Amino acid sequence: MGRWQPNARGRLEQAALDLFGERGFEQTTAAQIAERAGLTERTFFRHYGDKREVLFSGARELEEAFVTTLADTPETAAPMEAMASALETIAAFFLDSHEFARRRHAVITANAELRERELIKLASLAAALAATLRRRGVKDPAASLAAEAGMAVFKIGFERWVGGTGERTLADHLRESLAELRAITAGA
Amino acid sequence: MGRWQPNARGRLEQAALDLFGERGFEQTTAAQIAERAGLTERTFFRHYGDKREVLFSGARELEEAFVTTLADTPETAAPMEAMASALETIAAFFLDSHEFARRRHAVITANAELRERELIKLASLAAALAATLRRRGVKDPAASLAAEAGMAVFKIGFERWVGGTGERTLADHLRESLAELRAITAGA
Repeated sequence: MGRWQPNARGRLEQAALDLFGERGFEQTTAAQIAERAGLTERTFFRHYGDKREVLFSGARELEEAFVTTLADTPETAAPMEAMASALETIAAFFLDSHEFARRRHAVITANAELRERELIKLASLAAALAATLRRRGVKDPAASLAAEAGMAVFKIGFERWVGGTGERTLADHLRESLAELRAITAGA
Repeated sequence: MGRWQPNARGRLEQAALDLFGERGFEQTTAAQIAERAGLTERTFFRHYGDKREVLFSGARELEEAFVTTLADTPETAAPMEAMASALETIAAFFLDSHEFARRRHAVITANAELRERELIKLASLAAALAATLRRRGVKDPAASLAAEAGMAVFKIGFERWVGGTGERTLADHLRESLAELRAITAGA
């Protein structure tokens, strides 16, 4: 084991996004990311299994936070109220990361394999949220639909946030998307 | 070119589902599918690029039908009304195919690669529907959200249909899912 590197993960993330942006994801190696970050390849692999993981290491944390906050909303909250409350909490995680999220999103949308990985992440998240709602006593299809609706709000709100200047927060975009979903499903 | 084979595609589909069910998707080859169907491997490859295509050859047709019916709904229809109308038309395509859909779904859910392919298919469909709504003058985020909501209704309704006995039609399940989505998003 080498000595501890201050903020090694942050430096590796930054270097990876720089290189993915400059050369493309496929053309970048873990060794190059480590070199750009001023760290050894060994340090890279102490933090990440491969270069793709630099972009997706937050997925498990996001899912855990999402599921926990959804599970912790008051028992009396209806499914979409609970989902709205969970979205507010999740948005707080992204308060200072607009620039990182924007650059990460650009790398992912430019690469078919990464877009697929992102879809799988969101599908896994939807399944975890549906299971959480079922544990709260919500029956199907309501549980699955509330989970899918929550993910649709998250996905579209997130895309609009990373596509914007960052002046409006992710929470603003998620609230707007949820209100819009309510408006279009109500109008029949 | 060999001589014309009556209902070669139907026979190959049937044989493929039998073998995927018996041996698993990975353990089945195109040659074995052709043999089971009483056809040559050459005939197989005249109809399908590979064994995965037997399961996904309907994807483009589905997307085209979905987009066309959505585009053809009256200009005055609100986004979710147009989507509901498109879902009704799409359901008619599946009227006599519960058994095929059920067996296909079982093969797909048992295999990670196929589940990913199915996710990509649905994401592509959602993007096509959102683009169609934008061409109808629907602004974002409403267009994207209506497309995602429509896909959520389709996905959950379809899963419940293939998970059931087939007594209730796909149209029944899609209507129920749409009504449920409206109920949970309305309750705030």
